[in-house]
Amino acid sequence: MVLFEQGAHISYGACEMPYYVAGQIEPAEKLIAFTPESFKAERGATVHVRHRVVGLEPRRGHLHVENLETGLARTERFDAFVLATGARARMPGLEGEQAPNVFPLRTLDDAVGLHDYLDAHPPAHAVVLGGGYVGLEVAQALRHRHWRVTILEPTGKLLGHYIGDAFRDHVHQHVAAGGVAVRKERADAFLMGAGGHVQAIHTTAGEKIGCALVVVAMGIEPRTELGAQAGVRLGASGAYRVDSGMRTNVPGVWACGDAVEVRRVVDDAPVYAPLAPAAFRTARVAGENAARRGRGAPARFAGVCPASAVKAFGLEVAAVGLRFDEATAAGFDAVACAITHTSRVKIYPGSKPLHVLFVAEKGSGRLLGAELVGAEGAALRANVLVPLVREKWSVRDIRDLDFVYNPPVAPSYDALLVAANETAKRIGRR
Amino acid sequence: MVLFEQGAHISYGACEMPYYVAGQIEPAEKLIAFTPESFKAERGATVHVRHRVVGLEPRRGHLHVENLETGLARTERFDAFVLATGARARMPGLEGEQAPNVFPLRTLDDAVGLHDYLDAHPPAHAVVLGGGYVGLEVAQALRHRHWRVTILEPTGKLLGHYIGDAFRDHVHQHVAAGGVAVRKERADAFLMGAGGHVQAIHTTAGEKIGCALVVVAMGIEPRTELGAQAGVRLGASGAYRVDSGMRTNVPGVWACGDAVEVRRVVDDAPVYAPLAPAAFRTARVAGENAARRGRGAPARFAGVCPASAVKAFGLEVAAVGLRFDEATAAGFDAVACAITHTSRVKIYPGSKPLHVLFVAEKGSGRLLGAELVGAEGAALRANVLVPLVREKWSVRDIRDLDFVYNPPVAPSYDALLVAANETAKRIGRR
Repeated sequence: MVLFEQGAHISYGACEMPYYVAGQIEPAEKLIAFTPESFKAERGATVHVRHRVVGLEPRRGHLHVENLETGLARTERFDAFVLATGARARMPGLEGEQAPNVFPLRTLDDAVGLHDYLDAHPPAHAVVLGGGYVGLEVAQALRHRHWRVTILEPTGKLLGHYIGDAFRDHVHQHVAAGGVAVRKERADAFLMGAGGHVQAIHTTAGEKIGCALVVVAMGIEPRTELGAQAGVRLGASGAYRVDSGMRTNVPGVWACGDAVEVRRVVDDAPVYAPLAPAAFRTARVAGENAARRGRGAPARFAGVCPASAVKAFGLEVAAVGLRFDEATAAGFDAVACAITHTSRVKIYPGSKPLHVLFVAEKGSGRLLGAELVGAEGAALRANVLVPLVREKWSVRDIRDLDFVYNPPVAPSYDALLVAANETAKRIGRR
Repeated sequence: MVLFEQGAHISYGACEMPYYVAGQIEPAEKLIAFTPESFKAERGATVHVRHRVVGLEPRRGHLHVENLETGLARTERFDAFVLATGARARMPGLEGEQAPNVFPLRTLDDAVGLHDYLDAHPPAHAVVLGGGYVGLEVAQALRHRHWRVTILEPTGKLLGHYIGDAFRDHVHQHVAAGGVAVRKERADAFLMGAGGHVQAIHTTAGEKIGCALVVVAMGIEPRTELGAQAGVRLGASGAYRVDSGMRTNVPGVWACGDAVEVRRVVDDAPVYAPLAPAAFRTARVAGENAARRGRGAPARFAGVCPASAVKAFGLEVAAVGLRFDEATAAGFDAVACAITHTSRVKIYPGSKPLHVLFVAEKGSGRLLGAELVGAEGAALRANVLVPLVREKWSVRDIRDLDFVYNPPVAPSYDALLVAANETAKRIGRR
């Protein structure tokens, strides 16, 4: 088994990078799970870092690889190939975005660059492009480093990709309380200053925002050039299309991770849902099937029930399954029902409000998705709902579940039960 | 609708009482969800407190009730009767247990008595009889009040009723670090001093332990005298036997709450599992069916998947379903598999060890029960397992679940997945 990686590192914790940038987790080496050496020693695979696979000839079983250190190209043979090319940061596409004070936060090198930039410069004003969860985490990291921070989010909606509008004000309030300005604007030009640095951003609202640093957190897109060139079909999302065994349409080629579409179990739609837990599982399936060259009963990926959480500025925000608008778009006759309860027994010191929204199908009462927002207890409660969404539970049946009750950790009647009960009422009798 | 209650209060948070005793939640009125007056106003039911129903004649639809304030008895008619007589504290059965410095902690009056006793006396040495979760919570409350505390637990095993031996040391270590001595002894005599107070406890080990206060936390037993006298059948546990509609064998009489046996969904066994969340649900079912005098399709109780959690001395301990020994006793060919992971991403500041034990059936891989122990994140993760145990999930399928990953709240590969994976390995291939 041979692994080619164009970067200098393999197997690091990308979700930990904001905390490294903040200086809360240091040094950067702590983020690395495997080095090429330890991967060889522990897993028996040869790793070539700083090597880019530039061409694939599946029929001949040939790949063309370039050593990025030496510039030398060579051809190697393979019996089975796995495309684990991941994703790249989406960039604004503006002149100047390669400036030394503009950082995406996708690779460990990006993180080290940003971290070291912060070490080398006194706090000033930073602009973060994008108000998704990475944008929020980066904004928090920069505040931790005493920078002033403005988030430019063209929709004006923080976490707009994760939750609907019901609880958005809570997010905006916490971010504002954390000292971060949010502007409903898009960068349309970088104004360059001395040394080729971006010194201001011009926006679609005609504003000019001075800044000493720009972080790009506009999302990611799958890297599919290598496979596409070799005839691997892409799905509508632009990621590789694979079957449940992670097999592409090209014999001998599998794909996985942030480069593939996966089946969303709520509606069986192929979606691009690049989250680490699913990436682990698709990688395992692809690897297992490729190692057997597709022979025997294939390992199968069970699909994804989207589940994500972010904690920033003292607020946990978690989402499971479909948002209301996604459910409607997927053809469900859905209702959304929001409640506010408490994280622990209300009168127990430290108990916090906990907001829960259920999206359910009318009639069946089937739980399609949920949002949970609160200072504590939101993310882990989201996990409770993951198997319920996957298994098409009705909110009516959720009311029968025995959840733990202990004043310091959970109220007698859990927020999930309150939400289930209120949603069931909204839907009416069976 | 008329409600008779022999005590002075209805509808209060019994699980909050240790925190009231500790002085963390005050005054006692905060624990009261409904007063007789508010219950009348909001729910339309007439409440008679300090009234004891002393006799029941189901065939005639008569009940005999005594006003405990006046001593007067009267007879009332009923069309449907619900036995919601709850449970009483199990007492040691020793002479002197009615002394003014011996407190069970079952009723709000018990809690007020103990609380006021602590207010009125300088900290000294207290002995807690019983090392279950109430014992631990009371011990913690007494430490909070600066008392020295010894727990007498005849088995020597704290939380022996909730978890097996795998993680018991963690509990004992935290309790010891909290300054509480635990002795594997049983009280066999109270030694009385001035004013009829217990001044020392004599134990089965021949020890004499001086104390200024005794708290009895030896568990509870259902109050069934009233129903038994009227011909209501009891189950093997000693609690009322009811069907899934909470109907007793006596026409016109339903029962619920801590006075009934319930079906344990793991093995369909009738068990005495007196926990508040199930009590709410059995009460609702009993009330709904009684209100309709048993006519129409009955409301049904879906059974209980035992789930409990306690947080004391900085440690959360949670249990779901069956312990290994319970599973074996129930006839399952079971394995137990324990793992240690972390509450959050390991390198994130504040992450704590999290211990998880799964009990699963060999062959099928079915999850029968689980224990979770850690400084944080144990109790809410237990809730994830409640529907999985109920729905007979295999640990193999748990590996396919998408749990949220965010460094401040959960690791990339959650402890539940680690436990599922290790248990699946232990069980072997499907």
